[in-house]
Amino acid sequence: MRILGIDPGLAIVGYGVVDYIRGKFNIIAMGSIQTPAGTQTEDRIKTIYDDLNSIIDEYQPSEVSIEELFFNTNQKTAIAVAEARGVILLSCKNNGLNIAEYTPLQVKQSVCGYGRATKKQVMEMTRMLLGMTEKIKLDDTADAIALAICHAHCSGSKIKDYFNQKKTKML
Amino acid sequence: MRILGIDPGLAIVGYGVVDYIRGKFNIIAMGSIQTPAGTQTEDRIKTIYDDLNSIIDEYQPSEVSIEELFFNTNQKTAIAVAEARGVILLSCKNNGLNIAEYTPLQVKQSVCGYGRATKKQVMEMTRMLLGMTEKIKLDDTADAIALAICHAHCSGSKIKDYFNQKKTKML
Repeated sequence: MRILGIDPGLAIVGYGVVDYIRGKFNIIAMGSIQTPAGTQTEDRIKTIYDDLNSIIDEYQPSEVSIEELFFNTNQKTAIAVAEARGVILLSCKNNGLNIAEYTPLQVKQSVCGYGRATKKQVMEMTRMLLGMTEKIKLDDTADAIALAICHAHCSGSKIKDYFNQKKTKML
Repeated sequence: MRILGIDPGLAIVGYGVVDYIRGKFNIIAMGSIQTPAGTQTEDRIKTIYDDLNSIIDEYQPSEVSIEELFFNTNQKTAIAVAEARGVILLSCKNNGLNIAEYTPLQVKQSVCGYGRATKKQVMEMTRMLLGMTEKIKLDDTADAIALAICHAHCSGSKIKDYFNQKKTKML
């Protein structure tokens, strides 16, 4: 199973492509799509949409794991990130990918075993699972790879049902 | 000048196509794109994107006037509307339209002459300006047409600069 993990944003979209075969991970590609501040939103989301289409076309993942959005703070940022997330979902849908969404809590729980893990712990665990020696440059890229790992762990397993049940109860 | 007005949403996207020539308005088309509740977000935004592409292709507007988002209430709705708005902006950008954004206050001020006009007053004034006899069925469609009128009034005028100045000061 080849999974594309995506950490959505307007300024930076982190991504990671991971193969998960017989319980082992292999990193295929990782990086970020970045759009310059001060340019029009429509130009930025077009860049995100076009670049993501190219990434999907190049690496041919079958699944995408994308962060679910929750916001308490800056509404202006929330709206901008959600607009970017809209075109990310559209790109994934148009390319026929199975789309799964996870909260940061689910990712931490799945990668580190507990939901209160720090950002650093998630990053270390991600590197370990992938057998990487070098540090992952951007937080957004690390988060994207963690999302891919989370999906590999949860996909088709009872953990996913457990999360979904909990989610349904929360709504 | 042919203007497409859009009131963004995930369940209902209102739209109206209006010609504005030598100070006179003419309604060309109006309606809504509706997506069923309970279906996946990615399916709903794909419907919005595809349908909007068809509308633009059919009526060939040169400008789009779209509502700017502000939210104080339900965050879940805010995120869903913003995701839909992202693909609306993408469709407009990909079709080469000039994109203008207005707040509800700007629309009321431009259509009725004052920012505290009620929804009903905006709707009545919209019908009057367009010489329409029948009632506009959906609020979302009426809002979209009002957005198109607002853009006609503001476009290239000092009012737009005035609004933009005020906006810059607010940020």
